[in-house]
Amino acid sequence: MYKAVVYVTLRQSVLDPQGHAVKGALHSLGFDEVKDVRIGKYMEVELDTADRSQAEERISAMCEKLLANTVIEDYRFEIVEG
Amino acid sequence: MYKAVVYVTLRQSVLDPQGHAVKGALHSLGFDEVKDVRIGKYMEVELDTADRSQAEERISAMCEKLLANTVIEDYRFEIVEG
Repeated sequence: MYKAVVYVTLRQSVLDPQGHAVKGALHSLGFDEVKDVRIGKYMEVELDTADRSQAEERISAMCEKLLANTVIEDYRFEIVEG
Repeated sequence: MYKAVVYVTLRQSVLDPQGHAVKGALHSLGFDEVKDVRIGKYMEVELDTADRSQAEERISAMCEKLLANTVIEDYRFEIVEG
C-alpha cells in the first residue's frame, strides 16, 4: 500500500477569487499583515499497489485526467508508504 | 516577509463526501487500485512580518478564527521565508 499526497494549485498567472475573498476576511478580522492568499487543494489518495514507480505513474495519470485542470492548475505529489 | 503554508484536513472521524465522489470517478476511469481519497485545503498566506515566532502565533490565530473549522477539521502549517 502506498499513499499519494497531491497538491493542486492555481497557476501564478490565474486570478484566485477565493484567495482574494479570504484575504479580505482576514483583513476585516484585524490581520492586516496578510499580503496575499492563494488557495489550492490537498488530496490524500490510498493506492493498493505494491510497486512505487507504478504508483507514481498512475497518480500522474489521475492528475492529468481528473484531479487537476492542467489548463489553469499545476500539480505535484509525493508518494509515501503506508 | 514570511510565507505560511497551511493544510486543512477533515478529521478522520468525519465523512468526506467529496473524497468519496472523487474515488468513484477514479474507479469509473479505470483506476481500480484507489482505496480511499480524502480531500483538504492547501493555502499559501504571505505575511508582512519581520519576526518568525510572531508569524507563527498570528497564523495559528487565523486558523482558529477563520481558515479551519476546528469542530470538524484539523490544521497544520509551516512558515517559510520569502
